[in-house]
Amino acid sequence: MRVTVGDVIAVGPGKIALLEALDETGSITAAAKSLDMSYRRAWLLIDELNRTLKEPAVATAAGGAKGGGSALTETGRALVGLYRQIEATALQACKPEIRQLMKLLAS
Amino acid sequence: MRVTVGDVIAVGPGKIALLEALDETGSITAAAKSLDMSYRRAWLLIDELNRTLKEPAVATAAGGAKGGGSALTETGRALVGLYRQIEATALQACKPEIRQLMKLLAS
Repeated sequence: MRVTVGDVIAVGPGKIALLEALDETGSITAAAKSLDMSYRRAWLLIDELNRTLKEPAVATAAGGAKGGGSALTETGRALVGLYRQIEATALQACKPEIRQLMKLLAS
Repeated sequence: MRVTVGDVIAVGPGKIALLEALDETGSITAAAKSLDMSYRRAWLLIDELNRTLKEPAVATAAGGAKGGGSALTETGRALVGLYRQIEATALQACKPEIRQLMKLLAS
């Protein structure tokens, strides 16, 4: 599922996977690495997402010896939860049609 | 909704919109134009789609004075129908969660 705002994909599978990786790893650097993505791209995706939302999805603590690390906010957690719930509900509701569509595909 | 096969998006909103435009206009040229897409891109998308499916979604009649024009096959029609049906069913099934997710977005 993708949520577009104008021409921009506000929420899609890439951003959700990134939030989940961030939640697991506790840093943008590690999250990006686990998704084989550059730090710059991960940072830009998170920045874009934060701007699209009323409240940011990710909070980054400043400073400290190792840098502050990043974490999902309440909004970030709600977004991931709703997204995965919508996917599961949609898949369940559309099982017969999805099965029929898959039958049209080769192999 | 997108259906991916490996890393390739086999079926997604772009290809479905193209099939619908082709059904309305009867030619790849006119369909491409109506979507503000180059003929080459439209042709490549249709070719890719046809290769992904057991049976092609689009049939192009060869020759004739104006060229033969193109039309959806039975498979093409089934694909568009199932895709739009899945979208509608999914949207209906997930209305409360989608409404909650939308509330997280700015503006």
